[in-house]
Amino acid sequence: MKKRSLLMIPGPIEFEPDVLSALGEPTTSHLAPDFMEAFGCAMEQMRQVFASPSGQPLVLAGSGTLAMDCAGANLVEPGDHALVVNTGYFSERFATILERYGAQVTSVSSPPGGCPALEEIRSALEAGSFKLITITHVDTSTGVRADVRGIAELGKDYGSLVVVDGVCSVAGEELEMDAWGMDLTLTASQKALGVPPGLAMLMIGPRALHAFQKRTTPVLNYYAEWTNWLPIMQAYEARKPGYFGTPPVNLIFALNVSLNHILAEGMPKRFARHVAISEACKAGIKALGLGQVPLESWFTAHTLTAPRYPKGVNGAEFLANVLQAGVTLAGGLHPAIRSEYFRIGHMGAVTLSDVLVTLSAIEKALAGCGYEFPQNVSIEAAQASWKESIR
Amino acid sequence: MKKRSLLMIPGPIEFEPDVLSALGEPTTSHLAPDFMEAFGCAMEQMRQVFASPSGQPLVLAGSGTLAMDCAGANLVEPGDHALVVNTGYFSERFATILERYGAQVTSVSSPPGGCPALEEIRSALEAGSFKLITITHVDTSTGVRADVRGIAELGKDYGSLVVVDGVCSVAGEELEMDAWGMDLTLTASQKALGVPPGLAMLMIGPRALHAFQKRTTPVLNYYAEWTNWLPIMQAYEARKPGYFGTPPVNLIFALNVSLNHILAEGMPKRFARHVAISEACKAGIKALGLGQVPLESWFTAHTLTAPRYPKGVNGAEFLANVLQAGVTLAGGLHPAIRSEYFRIGHMGAVTLSDVLVTLSAIEKALAGCGYEFPQNVSIEAAQASWKESIR
Repeated sequence: MKKRSLLMIPGPIEFEPDVLSALGEPTTSHLAPDFMEAFGCAMEQMRQVFASPSGQPLVLAGSGTLAMDCAGANLVEPGDHALVVNTGYFSERFATILERYGAQVTSVSSPPGGCPALEEIRSALEAGSFKLITITHVDTSTGVRADVRGIAELGKDYGSLVVVDGVCSVAGEELEMDAWGMDLTLTASQKALGVPPGLAMLMIGPRALHAFQKRTTPVLNYYAEWTNWLPIMQAYEARKPGYFGTPPVNLIFALNVSLNHILAEGMPKRFARHVAISEACKAGIKALGLGQVPLESWFTAHTLTAPRYPKGVNGAEFLANVLQAGVTLAGGLHPAIRSEYFRIGHMGAVTLSDVLVTLSAIEKALAGCGYEFPQNVSIEAAQASWKESIR
Repeated sequence: MKKRSLLMIPGPIEFEPDVLSALGEPTTSHLAPDFMEAFGCAMEQMRQVFASPSGQPLVLAGSGTLAMDCAGANLVEPGDHALVVNTGYFSERFATILERYGAQVTSVSSPPGGCPALEEIRSALEAGSFKLITITHVDTSTGVRADVRGIAELGKDYGSLVVVDGVCSVAGEELEMDAWGMDLTLTASQKALGVPPGLAMLMIGPRALHAFQKRTTPVLNYYAEWTNWLPIMQAYEARKPGYFGTPPVNLIFALNVSLNHILAEGMPKRFARHVAISEACKAGIKALGLGQVPLESWFTAHTLTAPRYPKGVNGAEFLANVLQAGVTLAGGLHPAIRSEYFRIGHMGAVTLSDVLVTLSAIEKALAGCGYEFPQNVSIEAAQASWKESIR
């Protein structure tokens, strides 16, 4: 019996063995030539993964929330107006962060599982004047995927900085930072980027950097202030020593290994694989007769699936059954519907086999909860979907 | 030939192999029972290492600077008065952080390598009314070790919160948080605690927690705010799920392994080993005729040694020679004297052999720079000192 269960939550995910090996290597000095090389190389590779030749990478020890905080603290000055496209728990967190730094926040919201239409966002932009607009590319709490490209175009039209929370999307969902006119994209290591948790990452575009440079008030967060870190990032990229705080050496070596994998696969192929895996998973869930949190398939994430429990199935019992069957899934997170759904993460190095094992465990767990369905129906549906995708 | 050089800088240090193995293990869910157990256990062990049965542990993804920022942001309200005992670069950074959050800072300083006398600190406390006093237990930039016990007593007498930056001291220098009347101790993972960089750690005493709870203004830093994290820390310690941001799972597993080692050695024995190792190293440096940055031996750190270059020796050439000889050392950091000295870290799992290898490399490097001395003089002095210590 394998001791570990398959980790199919929306982060942390299953990591590549050589990423984990790099993490466990003896630590070098943060100023050693091999570390400067790895860090510099990681930043160069980040630009490719984010499709942002014009971007300035920033990598900090921290969680995804620090990356959000770092964006908010450096871009917001007291009294600034911000528009938040609210698609769930993490969009709301972004609003809270912006308010913390003095922003007047307007939210365009929809019920849990919904996604505000472009027209609503346009109306809001028309009605005000916003220094920045924040978009949660994939809200991990709902599995809703926002139309970043469309919203970014609107943001640009109305002269707002376009700030994207890509925690559950970068390196999994199609994203072209420069081409789509995005000004800042942030993420965390433990999702589709494929590195254990502990890195907060930002790609700062020229307009965002310019807005930061034009600030007239101090940044109200010392650790996250760009002034402290940008010279260090530039030094590492030039393979020169620089020091502000000790970087998380082992995690950055691991990041560089994972970025190598990502770029070896190639971004278009990687995005297509995430779509095909997602469709296979969702076909399986649908075949079981389960609904999903996102209200429309065209704004549903490819990095996770958020199925609703069928009537009569208790969430805690279901999740315990799934774990018993060798797979770890996540419960609901959105406060309004927390007990009504669960979450399957499928990103990074994920394979069709992982999805089939997961669906098999879900079938066992549902059967254990007394839910009736034709055995293997989800697996057959997933396989059929996959065949269709790879034709 | 070994590929790696021996890492003898004041953090990151050489880590125990099983700490690195734990770091490289496949990641589990941040809500998996084995992770909740490891995190809970780590917090219980932290209380023992900090000698703070009454303390509330807080562990965040971040660097030591985040730990300082986290203390400052949560304890300072605009207009508060703070006294900074300034013993170098990191004390000055603490002053900057406190000012960022609105504190009126008074510093008690001395020239680089000096340490303000208790009487000066008493006079400053007498002349003002300070909500908090900050002490850098060991300033990594100078190797000066402050008399935390004595200053804490003064702080208590004058009703100030005693906040200690223990980044380069916790688990290396003698420290009894509760018994000495300290109110907050912060540190980072990559020093004497023996875990690769990426964890910011605090132990919050009851009076500091009370001051936080009595705040009338919001904390001006979202990621570091205690309100967000304290319920999560309490949940993990109760082995119950809680979520605010994804914790750095692998680093926390590694932390728990390192804390096991530390407590297995026992704190008094560990502190004594650090003193003996430090004395051996310093005896070797003295035998070579090199001075040290700290002006008096009674306020010199046991976790690092900061030797001054002898006349005519160029720092860059010396450090390159040392590296060539298989050991990595650190250059100077204090802006006023940066090019005049170097730094040897000796903490955590460090052994006498590590010190002897280091002194041997230093001898080779100095000889390569044209400095003359009797060969092996530092090694003999270190061995003699060690024999004296372990008698």
